[in-house]
Amino acid sequence: MKTTAVTFASPVAPASYSWEATNEEVAERFGIPVDQVVRFDLNTSPTPPELVGELLAAGRFESALSEYPPSDYRRLVAAAAARYGVAPDEVLVGAGADEILDLIAKAFLRPGETAVVPTPTYAMYRVLTEQRGAGVLAVPRRPATDGWALDVDAVGAAARTSAVVWLCSPNNPTGLPEPDGAIEALLGRLQADASTDGRAAPVVVLDEAYAEFVGASLLPLRTRYPELVVVRTASKAYALAGLRVGFAVARPEVIDRMNPYRPPGSVSTVSVTVVTEALLHPTILDANLTRVATERARLRAGLAAIGWDVGPSVTNFVLVDFETPERAAAVADGLLRRGLVPRTFPEGHPVAAYLRLTVRDPAENDRLLAAAHDLATELPA
Amino acid sequence: MKTTAVTFASPVAPASYSWEATNEEVAERFGIPVDQVVRFDLNTSPTPPELVGELLAAGRFESALSEYPPSDYRRLVAAAAARYGVAPDEVLVGAGADEILDLIAKAFLRPGETAVVPTPTYAMYRVLTEQRGAGVLAVPRRPATDGWALDVDAVGAAARTSAVVWLCSPNNPTGLPEPDGAIEALLGRLQADASTDGRAAPVVVLDEAYAEFVGASLLPLRTRYPELVVVRTASKAYALAGLRVGFAVARPEVIDRMNPYRPPGSVSTVSVTVVTEALLHPTILDANLTRVATERARLRAGLAAIGWDVGPSVTNFVLVDFETPERAAAVADGLLRRGLVPRTFPEGHPVAAYLRLTVRDPAENDRLLAAAHDLATELPA
Repeated sequence: MKTTAVTFASPVAPASYSWEATNEEVAERFGIPVDQVVRFDLNTSPTPPELVGELLAAGRFESALSEYPPSDYRRLVAAAAARYGVAPDEVLVGAGADEILDLIAKAFLRPGETAVVPTPTYAMYRVLTEQRGAGVLAVPRRPATDGWALDVDAVGAAARTSAVVWLCSPNNPTGLPEPDGAIEALLGRLQADASTDGRAAPVVVLDEAYAEFVGASLLPLRTRYPELVVVRTASKAYALAGLRVGFAVARPEVIDRMNPYRPPGSVSTVSVTVVTEALLHPTILDANLTRVATERARLRAGLAAIGWDVGPSVTNFVLVDFETPERAAAVADGLLRRGLVPRTFPEGHPVAAYLRLTVRDPAENDRLLAAAHDLATELPA
Repeated sequence: MKTTAVTFASPVAPASYSWEATNEEVAERFGIPVDQVVRFDLNTSPTPPELVGELLAAGRFESALSEYPPSDYRRLVAAAAARYGVAPDEVLVGAGADEILDLIAKAFLRPGETAVVPTPTYAMYRVLTEQRGAGVLAVPRRPATDGWALDVDAVGAAARTSAVVWLCSPNNPTGLPEPDGAIEALLGRLQADASTDGRAAPVVVLDEAYAEFVGASLLPLRTRYPELVVVRTASKAYALAGLRVGFAVARPEVIDRMNPYRPPGSVSTVSVTVVTEALLHPTILDANLTRVATERARLRAGLAAIGWDVGPSVTNFVLVDFETPERAAAVADGLLRRGLVPRTFPEGHPVAAYLRLTVRDPAENDRLLAAAHDLATELPA
């Protein structure tokens, strides 16, 4: 569905991000009121925590908004460290997880080096690697019937000549975590191979953007595998994507290698204050996690009843198999005509025959179920 | 004054940013209450525009804060385009001018290429060039007695083998614009040289972070010199540094070369909404510009009366010559002990014998004048 994304191309950019269409663009293209557009494509949450409005109205921030944000984000770092159970010198703040990924590429990838990307996964790993002048070794994941699990052997082999390995668990867009022990086994193998080969082990990035939805993290592995950089975010379970705050969590000596690339202050003071408070209030997630669990089960059951092939998921999105790219495109078009925006995948993508759908609030999910019901009769099987 | 900055070093980073100490760090080090610390080192404005509080309290933003910011920043781009008198497709949004500079380095510098940096100037040009794997050709500016003007011949010669030329006018930390016609003359020469040499002219970055203070811009030159990228910001004259919004303004084909490097959304939705409104209200700058003009004259006169050698300035800061790095360091120490933070320059820097001081509000400037008066008697001449 090229129609739903604005794609840029440049002779100097081997890969670049495909921008999602805005609500206005979708509304204009499909002739629907803009307030009828619902984003099932961005894996965001329907409403921010209530405390946000209170904090903004109070207008008390770390510093006056005419000044730069505090250069060390001290309170935010302390709150994140307490929340994730790490030391403050193990936390680095960025303008969303995307800036953290960019800092990782800058700190750990040199032109001409390679990075391993198990596919399918989040598109930015490839984009940032190639923009750094480094190459991507794409390693296919096991099939859907094996839960899209990492191919540990193939990743390990590719990592032998690579500087960085990009992992994501639970993985986007497949919605599942790696099998128990798989990432630790991979880390152990990478260390052993590096020792055998007489070189440093590659940096392993573990994007845990969706970790709160499973209530588990592999952060403790960093003490035994110091090359591990875990990425966390306020955008998903915390329902604060609009504030653009993400974190790298790693051993202090790894953070020290990233720090020189951190810009003088990319995160708004407003975001610093609000996300600090969100991290300090441990119950803030509860309502959202409960909503996701309940609605995910209801949405999966409802779509399955209509005959859609919905994969299992531990996250706030599901991946639906339509068997062919043509059928996925036809369903996407039908949803878009109703103002419901699915995540599509371009031709040649490992999940080009699938659509990814965010679990939203009950009323929005009802619209999706109604649309799916209509489409089941509209579209030839 | 290494005491006022936390400096990071990394074996993989040829140059990295020196972080300013936070208010808390200054307070702790010098044993003063944190609310007595005043930043004369960051060229910010003392208070944000009044409309900020109203907008935050109203809580109406482009989109819910649980969603990502609009991927095209449409209203913000339109407001900036109207404000700067350009077309919307000539504007690119970033998380502060610093992200814009990073996108420029990514889009226009390849490893092994070189960039020209007329010195002294803003430190990030060198940092970002070297972090991109490119080299810096530093070209000294003319002396203070010549208004720190660009050496057009020397810059032109260095540019002959360079991909990027980093300019800043009015320049930081010297406080003055380039002489009339100098930048246009340079652009013409670069085009002529490129034509002679049979290659593309280098990209010329013109950082106009302080342009509002002089009420003039060289933006119109982009039509004749399409290699020109002008950088603007909400951080200085708009008094919104805490929101982190900056812009690149250039011909659409130049913006198109930068767009692939723009991350999926680095600017907070709150910042998008507030800066949009600030740009749409043309009188919002007036009070701040008047304050700066009045207080700059008063501060310069007051410091000169005490015997300080204060350079001319068209910006919201002044550069003061203390003749030796030792004396500059002694004055900086005396100011810091009173909670007043000057901008210092490291050993070997072209202005290591100078301090840079932001023009702040009347009461804060009075504290600076009183401190300067005390120091004139405390320190041996």
